Amino acid sequence: MNSFTGRCSPLLTDLYQLTMLQTYLEYEMVDTAVFELFVRRLPSGRNFMVAAGLEQVLDFLENLRFLPDELDWLSQRFPAQMIDYLEQFRFTGDVHAMPEGTIFFPNEPVIRITAPMPQAQLVESRIMNLLHFETLIASKAARSVLVAPDKLLVDFGMRRAHGAEAGLLAARASYLAGFSGSATILAGAAFDVPLFGTMAHSFIQAHGDEMAAFEHFAQSHPENTVLLIDTYDTEAAAEKVVELAVKLRQKNIAIKGVRLDSGDLALHSCNVRQILDQGGLKDTTIFVSGNMDEYRLQALLSSDAPIDGFGIGTALDISTDAPTLDCAYKLQEYAGKARRKRSEGKTTWPGRKQVYRHFDDNYLIGDVVALEAGDPQEGEPLIAPYMRDGKRIHEKMSLHDIRQRSLSGYARLPKTLTDLGEVPDYPVEISAALQALATQLDAEQMDK
Amino acid sequence: MNSFTGRCSPLLTDLYQLTMLQTYLEYEMVDTAVFELFVRRLPSGRNFMVAAGLEQVLDFLENLRFLPDELDWLSQRFPAQMIDYLEQFRFTGDVHAMPEGTIFFPNEPVIRITAPMPQAQLVESRIMNLLHFETLIASKAARSVLVAPDKLLVDFGMRRAHGAEAGLLAARASYLAGFSGSATILAGAAFDVPLFGTMAHSFIQAHGDEMAAFEHFAQSHPENTVLLIDTYDTEAAAEKVVELAVKLRQKNIAIKGVRLDSGDLALHSCNVRQILDQGGLKDTTIFVSGNMDEYRLQALLSSDAPIDGFGIGTALDISTDAPTLDCAYKLQEYAGKARRKRSEGKTTWPGRKQVYRHFDDNYLIGDVVALEAGDPQEGEPLIAPYMRDGKRIHEKMSLHDIRQRSLSGYARLPKTLTDLGEVPDYPVEISAALQALATQLDAEQMDK
Repeated sequence: MNSFTGRCSPLLTDLYQLTMLQTYLEYEMVDTAVFELFVRRLPSGRNFMVAAGLEQVLDFLENLRFLPDELDWLSQRFPAQMIDYLEQFRFTGDVHAMPEGTIFFPNEPVIRITAPMPQAQLVESRIMNLLHFETLIASKAARSVLVAPDKLLVDFGMRRAHGAEAGLLAARASYLAGFSGSATILAGAAFDVPLFGTMAHSFIQAHGDEMAAFEHFAQSHPENTVLLIDTYDTEAAAEKVVELAVKLRQKNIAIKGVRLDSGDLALHSCNVRQILDQGGLKDTTIFVSGNMDEYRLQALLSSDAPIDGFGIGTALDISTDAPTLDCAYKLQEYAGKARRKRSEGKTTWPGRKQVYRHFDDNYLIGDVVALEAGDPQEGEPLIAPYMRDGKRIHEKMSLHDIRQRSLSGYARLPKTLTDLGEVPDYPVEISAALQALATQLDAEQMDK
Repeated sequence: MNSFTGRCSPLLTDLYQLTMLQTYLEYEMVDTAVFELFVRRLPSGRNFMVAAGLEQVLDFLENLRFLPDELDWLSQRFPAQMIDYLEQFRFTGDVHAMPEGTIFFPNEPVIRITAPMPQAQLVESRIMNLLHFETLIASKAARSVLVAPDKLLVDFGMRRAHGAEAGLLAARASYLAGFSGSATILAGAAFDVPLFGTMAHSFIQAHGDEMAAFEHFAQSHPENTVLLIDTYDTEAAAEKVVELAVKLRQKNIAIKGVRLDSGDLALHSCNVRQILDQGGLKDTTIFVSGNMDEYRLQALLSSDAPIDGFGIGTALDISTDAPTLDCAYKLQEYAGKARRKRSEGKTTWPGRKQVYRHFDDNYLIGDVVALEAGDPQEGEPLIAPYMRDGKRIHEKMSLHDIRQRSLSGYARLPKTLTDLGEVPDYPVEISAALQALATQLDAEQMDK
């Protein structure tokens, strides 16, 4: 947490977390509980997920405190014994997780919380709120990165993201997943995400005269002149850019790029490239935006449109084609005993788990979900400890390093998984010991 | 703003807002600008929108300040003259808007910002971020309210909402649109939204014995005992509820309700109703949740499933079937002169506008978008002043009163618009004077 990310009230939780907490305290159900968060199934149009949001979860757990006005509000609704408990509340548990940037699949736990029951339960809603969203966006962003690994990809989505935090964290999650940066200033201040930006149509409109707008902008931003050329007539504006470039050259100002935001981008980008090249502006890049997503990106690239960079907005920050993940945070063990939910269509795998990944020629070929203890497996374990007794174990990893991890992960994806279309499920096996534990718990429950 | 809603940094904006601002200051383009926000077209599956988020926009404008650490960060990237300007920054403009809870349609401005250009431009990103999201959720929520006006409808979506603010504001927007309340505690503290909640499966699982879990919960929440009965076997659990009720009656505790969260809800609710009724629990209500939306709601109601209330989560807080609105915040006038964007497929209607609504027998029959001045029209004007010179004009309206406005609005919707399916577009006419102004501006631009 830094001064730019702000504080989220612990009252951002579901009412039942507090009503259950009250009962747990009254009945002294304060033994160790183990919860795991996992994705039940991939949304249509996704072949893998990219884990993101762990850093924000650790911040949340480390800083979880109830302030006086929050306690006042609660004291009108809950017994004094509980308010005393909340006044002293500190998260004292352990966190195990997949590192951010890890590629993962359904049924694989991405985080495990081990803590006294009242604590482990209370933190559910916000942990899911954070991991769900950042993972959703990182997984969406990864698709554009795979389609256009050598292009400038910029998050433009804050204005239509779902609220302030979504705007901020979408910038973080997409950068983590391999984007070049974001237009959202706060993401630069809070997370050191590289920032990119041009100008709005209103800037051109306010000038009335397009040429005057271009010239003002170039003079005031000589190092970073990217001109928006589609407010009235794109090709006519490109001609003006060529004309202006001659004038600016005398002042040692180069026009770094132009942006198109409407119309047939394949056609306009070709026309504009030709106009710029003929005008001697071979180094002036073309950047496009407007209803962009990985499918349009792929179509533009296959048409050989001469585009150097893409601003991706709404489709990225909302993950419009799949705006939610079917994920759950479930109790897997309480008081030393494994637990299993058996609700129709929503059964869970019990116990504390580890995920092992298998490789062939450096490419992923299959994962095994196994019990953490007493269930030895080959392969690379994906889950590691991050917090012990409420304290972080490691120094924070830089976002740039996490981004490198994501990119290295993509390099190990088999060809089938990098496709935008749907492909056969990646094999995720449940170990024999884990299956046996589930069967045993079901039998015990039946006996009751 | 109160202590529960927190502060959003003004750095939550697009980089280009600040680069443009720099140029506006350098070239003294500080005349009055007029921007309007409108929805270009309805998403598929929506027949009208419900305006929401104005209160948050007014809070944002009234409290917009740059703090020392924000100015420090900016000072490494922008000239000193601009940092001085930002240090003194206060929003001093006017706001006109449709009141929250107003039903509206494409091309109708929902808010107008009139302020010196650098101010009116700077606030774009956050205004859109707020109005887009709350309007999206209110418009989604309205559909469930229309389908089930007499049922208990509760927002359950915070955990999968896109970040903290989305969780909080979805509770506000859905209540505003007619929901009964939310499970999100912070929405109760911040906005006085009524709160509802039951218990989680983990509560049952931790007890192992379902009956013990029910009994503990009832004893600790005698006034509000709603028991979750689908963790293992729904009908068996309903029998346990009947058995427990006898025991609790001696202690004067009634079981207020049960919740089902999985399986065939129509079937289980019928079975459970029968078990409860036969056990003398005719007053114990049935509440359902799990992948609920207005379509499933409608299907369950048409099957006469004996359900009293619904928890609607992800589909509501993300508006999953239409998770974004095609909206824009556009410059309509600068320095006393109307402006028009003509980009392909993205032309705008210029000038300051008013929307007039026509009624027949108390039902909406059509709207006219006209110029605010010199373009007299019949009908009820929808846009009113809310802020003058940076200060609110009115006392804040209570959220409960806004909710009443929404409900009164639904009562005036013609039958066609209340349908969940797609219906013919509601007529929104552009006045002759407004059309003439657009034509005139195009001609002037052509001359350049």
